[in-house]
Amino acid sequence: MEKASFALKGTICYAKTMGELETLDQGYVVCREGICEGAYPVLPKEYEGLPVIDYKNMLIIPGLVDLHIHAPQYPSQGLGLDLELLDWLKAHTFPEESRYGDMEYAKKAYRIFAQDLKNSATTRAVIFSTIHTDAAKFLMEALNDAGLVAFVGKVNMDQNCDDRLKEDTDASIEATVSWLDETLGKYETVRPILTPRFAPSCSEALLEGLGGLQKKYKIPVQSHLSENLSEISWVKELFPWSSCYGDVYERFGLFGGEAKTVMAHCVYSSKEEVARIKQNGVYVAHCPQSNMNLASGIAPIRKYLEEGIAVGLGTDVAGGASMSMFRCMIDAICVSKLYWRLLDQSKKPLTMEEAFYLATKGGGAFFGKVGSFEKGYEMDALVLDDGKMNGVRKLDAKQRLERYFYLAEEKGRIAAKYVGGADIWN
Amino acid sequence: MEKASFALKGTICYAKTMGELETLDQGYVVCREGICEGAYPVLPKEYEGLPVIDYKNMLIIPGLVDLHIHAPQYPSQGLGLDLELLDWLKAHTFPEESRYGDMEYAKKAYRIFAQDLKNSATTRAVIFSTIHTDAAKFLMEALNDAGLVAFVGKVNMDQNCDDRLKEDTDASIEATVSWLDETLGKYETVRPILTPRFAPSCSEALLEGLGGLQKKYKIPVQSHLSENLSEISWVKELFPWSSCYGDVYERFGLFGGEAKTVMAHCVYSSKEEVARIKQNGVYVAHCPQSNMNLASGIAPIRKYLEEGIAVGLGTDVAGGASMSMFRCMIDAICVSKLYWRLLDQSKKPLTMEEAFYLATKGGGAFFGKVGSFEKGYEMDALVLDDGKMNGVRKLDAKQRLERYFYLAEEKGRIAAKYVGGADIWN
Repeated sequence: MEKASFALKGTICYAKTMGELETLDQGYVVCREGICEGAYPVLPKEYEGLPVIDYKNMLIIPGLVDLHIHAPQYPSQGLGLDLELLDWLKAHTFPEESRYGDMEYAKKAYRIFAQDLKNSATTRAVIFSTIHTDAAKFLMEALNDAGLVAFVGKVNMDQNCDDRLKEDTDASIEATVSWLDETLGKYETVRPILTPRFAPSCSEALLEGLGGLQKKYKIPVQSHLSENLSEISWVKELFPWSSCYGDVYERFGLFGGEAKTVMAHCVYSSKEEVARIKQNGVYVAHCPQSNMNLASGIAPIRKYLEEGIAVGLGTDVAGGASMSMFRCMIDAICVSKLYWRLLDQSKKPLTMEEAFYLATKGGGAFFGKVGSFEKGYEMDALVLDDGKMNGVRKLDAKQRLERYFYLAEEKGRIAAKYVGGADIWN
Repeated sequence: MEKASFALKGTICYAKTMGELETLDQGYVVCREGICEGAYPVLPKEYEGLPVIDYKNMLIIPGLVDLHIHAPQYPSQGLGLDLELLDWLKAHTFPEESRYGDMEYAKKAYRIFAQDLKNSATTRAVIFSTIHTDAAKFLMEALNDAGLVAFVGKVNMDQNCDDRLKEDTDASIEATVSWLDETLGKYETVRPILTPRFAPSCSEALLEGLGGLQKKYKIPVQSHLSENLSEISWVKELFPWSSCYGDVYERFGLFGGEAKTVMAHCVYSSKEEVARIKQNGVYVAHCPQSNMNLASGIAPIRKYLEEGIAVGLGTDVAGGASMSMFRCMIDAICVSKLYWRLLDQSKKPLTMEEAFYLATKGGGAFFGKVGSFEKGYEMDALVLDDGKMNGVRKLDAKQRLERYFYLAEEKGRIAAKYVGGADIWN
């Protein structure tokens, strides 16, 4: 991919710190060989030789980062959402995932997923595939070809699941080793991530094996944590020695610390679990739409932010029906208002600026210096055409951005998309 | 408007009873002079002479009914939603509504509103305008020209509001009288509705005057009820004699009974208020997105349904950011899941079939026999093209419909729209 040098001109909006919005009308964002050189009201002299791409009055924002999405569940998008987590897994998710042993099906489905993700506002994502390594490799290739930056995980599971998806413990580890050997360093923008599905479907032997691979390969980890009350009781039954759900992962070296880790949901994390999340630097992938759809509840995101925990947003397709990170921001705001109103009035709702931070710099941090137009950040940018949203009133940059978030799916249009300095739109 | 006779062919989906979905693959809906003659798997002999419009594999559903929407707030769509109701009214809504004294502004804004509503899935709506009668008349005309069926209310308010919107009590009644005299029976599809803004902004004298007009003109009533906790305390202060918020309206003959009435929100209706809503046959307009956006809470819709109360859905633009009734259905489902999970596990979440019923037959009942393809219903229909939602799997009619609800804004396309038997799309 070409890591070009250029400047983008337009209405620049980005977040430096949680809750603050930087805006520049007719400003410039400068990119040198894929890295952002900063945002400026006037193009500094030293950059005058660069080509300027003038997006006129359009909004230019950092790319959006999806910290939790299941590629193989994309064909189940918007289906069967009248069930709770464990029933929904059995009725919809496991049957769907079992199809990915068939490479013909996998190719068809993953091509659509990669194309739609490319056409979305997401520039980077942390992605579950299935247990099937061939399909996982195909997905990695398709995402790499699309120019998207992603961590993709071959799922591991050896108990308590559909027979068609149940792996033999040793075979699961062996398959993971050969998948890692083959994919590590192979793609320009896509990397593997260790992916125990969730504690209930992993034996201790499997978790121990995966912990060993983490130490050996030094790669990150993703999984699910404390999403649903029945799930949490089940984990306690299955791992009676554990002091909390997260303890199961931690025991085997799969919960932060040396192992960069993102855990989806954390709706019901106990006091102890929250302390360990914080201590170990585990990222929380907040998936508000999925938590509504599967009637899980509302994650206490304000509490996590107050604790200084790293938080990003996830669409969790197909628990979340929508792949849109704009929708995800709005859902995060909405459920935080209900949390405040219904559960704890000491926890102020998220503002639009805060949701924007979470979707950009918050989740971006999992990928390094990502999600901002500050100097030194990787150059991911979206150019947003809000021409169809213009009504009778003149709006300022913040108002236009807020409206775009709320109405992106109905009236928004992405005009260009840059990932790591590469134009992947045209 | 032409009340044609024809049959529509396609994948027919509609609700007869709460929670049940009727589907017919390659079925027919028959319309005779604007009235539905029923839905059939095979076209009955007696209708064989009618022109058949073949929508192939597309979904055909009854039109969707929006029981609560503020036309003049449309320019504020997706703006300033980090505030609660009373602050939001002051900061955004009242300033915006004060512009509608300027007919140039009103015409520009209402033309956009009517056009966008025509292009939406909404076939019928119950609509607030502002205090300005000229603007209200223009809106009624624009909606009538668009072929939409609507109740439109000139708003009455004479206290506790922006000075620019505060009416003199007598002048408010006089203006309403002349507006009613001019608009009653004037339009083919649009009718006036009495619209005290909400109890806090109406003096007793104004409410009494409006009650008198209701008796005289025998027209319906719309207002807001028990949306927000601060609002409810305020009503109690302003009307210390009232036994509940709804009692303020009832005292003046503006709360069901002879006066067909729809009340938006009912998030915090007391036991007594619920009993009176039921007894008086008041319709509840459930506005889930608005109730999230303004951090109001979650209305206990399951309880209302168990009580046999008439419930429909409302987008409440611009408390709700989206005009989409599909989104409204999904929001209703989502908040009902959170209500069940967080507040009361005896109140089962709404299913997709139930949300569909509320958006069609539930709200439709406010307009008469509306919202179904049963014989004798007015012929409102939407033809939905879900071609862009097709993935790798074959789905049945129910699955396609559920997916359409969740993804309408992202990938849906309305292919045709019929209101009262008239094709208003082409």
